[in-house]
Amino acid sequence: MSNSRQLALDYLQKESNRFLDELKTFASLPSVSTDPQKAAEVQKTAQWVAERLRQAGMHKVEIMPTGGHPVVYGEHLEAGESAPTVLIYGHYDVQPAEPLDKWDSPPFEPQVRGENLYARGATDMKGQVTATINAVEAIIKTSALPVNVKFIIEGEEEIGSPHLADFIRQHKEKLACDFALNPDTGMVAPDLPTITYALRGLAYFELRVWGPDHDLHSGVFGGSVHNPAQALAELIAGMHDAEGRVTLPGFYDSVLPLSDEERAEIARLPIDDVWFLENTGAPALYGEKGYTPAERVGGRPTLEINGLYAGFIGEGSKTVLPSYAMAKISCRLVPNQDPEAVHRQLRQYLEENAPPTIRWELTAMVGSPPSLSDRHSPWNQAYLKAAEAVWGVRPLFKREGGSVPVVSDFQHILGVESVNIGFGLPNDNMHGPNEKLHLPTWKRGMQALVHFFFNL
Amino acid sequence: MSNSRQLALDYLQKESNRFLDELKTFASLPSVSTDPQKAAEVQKTAQWVAERLRQAGMHKVEIMPTGGHPVVYGEHLEAGESAPTVLIYGHYDVQPAEPLDKWDSPPFEPQVRGENLYARGATDMKGQVTATINAVEAIIKTSALPVNVKFIIEGEEEIGSPHLADFIRQHKEKLACDFALNPDTGMVAPDLPTITYALRGLAYFELRVWGPDHDLHSGVFGGSVHNPAQALAELIAGMHDAEGRVTLPGFYDSVLPLSDEERAEIARLPIDDVWFLENTGAPALYGEKGYTPAERVGGRPTLEINGLYAGFIGEGSKTVLPSYAMAKISCRLVPNQDPEAVHRQLRQYLEENAPPTIRWELTAMVGSPPSLSDRHSPWNQAYLKAAEAVWGVRPLFKREGGSVPVVSDFQHILGVESVNIGFGLPNDNMHGPNEKLHLPTWKRGMQALVHFFFNL
Repeated sequence: MSNSRQLALDYLQKESNRFLDELKTFASLPSVSTDPQKAAEVQKTAQWVAERLRQAGMHKVEIMPTGGHPVVYGEHLEAGESAPTVLIYGHYDVQPAEPLDKWDSPPFEPQVRGENLYARGATDMKGQVTATINAVEAIIKTSALPVNVKFIIEGEEEIGSPHLADFIRQHKEKLACDFALNPDTGMVAPDLPTITYALRGLAYFELRVWGPDHDLHSGVFGGSVHNPAQALAELIAGMHDAEGRVTLPGFYDSVLPLSDEERAEIARLPIDDVWFLENTGAPALYGEKGYTPAERVGGRPTLEINGLYAGFIGEGSKTVLPSYAMAKISCRLVPNQDPEAVHRQLRQYLEENAPPTIRWELTAMVGSPPSLSDRHSPWNQAYLKAAEAVWGVRPLFKREGGSVPVVSDFQHILGVESVNIGFGLPNDNMHGPNEKLHLPTWKRGMQALVHFFFNL
Repeated sequence: MSNSRQLALDYLQKESNRFLDELKTFASLPSVSTDPQKAAEVQKTAQWVAERLRQAGMHKVEIMPTGGHPVVYGEHLEAGESAPTVLIYGHYDVQPAEPLDKWDSPPFEPQVRGENLYARGATDMKGQVTATINAVEAIIKTSALPVNVKFIIEGEEEIGSPHLADFIRQHKEKLACDFALNPDTGMVAPDLPTITYALRGLAYFELRVWGPDHDLHSGVFGGSVHNPAQALAELIAGMHDAEGRVTLPGFYDSVLPLSDEERAEIARLPIDDVWFLENTGAPALYGEKGYTPAERVGGRPTLEINGLYAGFIGEGSKTVLPSYAMAKISCRLVPNQDPEAVHRQLRQYLEENAPPTIRWELTAMVGSPPSLSDRHSPWNQAYLKAAEAVWGVRPLFKREGGSVPVVSDFQHILGVESVNIGFGLPNDNMHGPNEKLHLPTWKRGMQALVHFFFNL
């Protein structure tokens, strides 16, 4: 191990208590982005982050306005042109802490119990943000950063980053980089470092169906007009075949198949049928035949009914034949699907299958493309070796079932891939009461980051 | 024409203005049975009806308590044992009048405009109740009633007659009769007197479907557990086949087929495809193949979705995989179907078709059997000839799509059929603003009733 690498690791150890105190301060700031009453606290938190970046040695630190909460920026570009430039993403806002009575200690009074720090934002993602800052500081203060670094820490992730894509477009040159580091994903278990190399996209729709032009007496008109709730059920039922495959025309055409190598990687994940049954409480599993649940999460696209409404849904009985029925429908998309193409496919399905006895209307609501990074890229390989050095095991490569729009924005606006990692654990209660950070994993994470920067 | 028949018809003519004034008084009483604040008004209306029955010559008039609003009873049993006994049904309660601003004149200040009397309850059914009382009075005051008559006028029809079946059971001997006259149905058009000889029964259910034991993140778990909203849609879609037939096992087994004679009668009704399209605004008709809409209404059973709910139904998008989905489902039943049998059939359908990936629960809520009266009975034939004498056309025989539980209660508790007639018209705005009664049809109705009593 090079001397500078060891010096930085020693620094992490030496400053360990200060880093924890700083995280406690950071986590005590109630930067709840969704709450207008907390706007001043959110602003104060941005200032704290800016100050922390300056202390860590970052240059040109500034609090940059957006249409909403500001982005904190800072850079350290002294590694020279031949060294890679890393854009480190983070967010300093947090979810609301309610319900407060479910917390064992106040959410904004961080408390260490056992190996964990309890506080809103401890794992999502103030712990992750400080880990990157601390690792960078450890190198700057002990030798020299082998890479160029730019931090972009936003304040609106928990409300869907409504202004971030525009911000990235407006500051495309300032944010130019070779790749991004996104420490907002997590690890499968404390001893299983994890690299998330694919994230699904999303295409969300509202389908509205009308039959008669007003609610009808089901006794007088039932059986002679097509009940729109029934018609909607028939359309929904036809969206999957008996093999659990989505029937939208062309839905799988552009889907990148899972390679044997990827399927072997996925098989290493500790996520089997029993895990799925235990974590959902479903009486039995369901899904596209020919794939394990772990392969379907991330590797295969889905179509889900998120909501359903028609007619009378109160207590008791009402013999109404409703004039209207509605479904919220969303598709999780995998590489190389496109939300707009899926929109066209759903429209085509409806055109081909909706009967002339009803009228329908389809609205496309939210759409984000999927993203995929090369597991063999120098960036992912650099983290793989770093994590291996710290944990002593080869990290897992994981496709994530959810969607992280910033990764897709970086890919589509800046043209760069992201290394998606993090030190949060499945039982960290992210977004819930008693959110926590596992401190030993957090410390190993900082060590891995130091290795990572030296491996690049 | 016999002298006594003519005397009674002349009496109707002579007392015509008084009868209208009495109806105006009756309709000015806001006997809204659903409104606890109107309890005193409902009671006052019962007293008015009792007093009117006494004035008309009824004996043993009494206001009889129930668990809710009282029943008004009166009898006239002087025709002797060889004459038939008619139980005349009516209700003195009305629907709420709201929205008041949609009325052209105040709902409880009856007003004659043109040929119509406008008031809440004018057609449903204070006009119909007074028509029967006036016709009976006309005979009593001019000669002698050729039949024995019992009036039972209830005050809870508009809230589903919750205490009536019990009342009939408790007073089975007092209410003993040869048949019932129920003037609570209507006519198809002012020149088309109508006899409703069949009413559908009802079987109402709530079907609840569970998948996972809590709402899930659709990105992490979608595609590997069966979405209960999708499973519910699949179950609903399977409840009809491509021919529009209900697929519950044995659903049609006990259904009494329509005879050629009945189909010829139904074909006389002015209810064709165009009528159905105009009255529903549906883009096209739907239904069981091989039957006209008029045949399906009343002649064929249905299964309708009255309500549908799952997951997120607010504005915008939420990527939830719901743990729960619900449908309200009702069947309209025709002779000789049985609500309990249909309950078993739906349960069997679910047992055979629900996949092991979900849990389900079925609750039977409201059930009432269908009813059918013999078109060739002396009672229906007596009314047929009576109406023919007044309108100059042979009345239409109609199967009604809706359900009138009192008819079924009379059939199952007292063991008697009902003659279901009335002088309300489709455009009388029953239950809506500007409810009205067509006075020329009302007057012809009273004449027809006089003929009817003499024809028995």
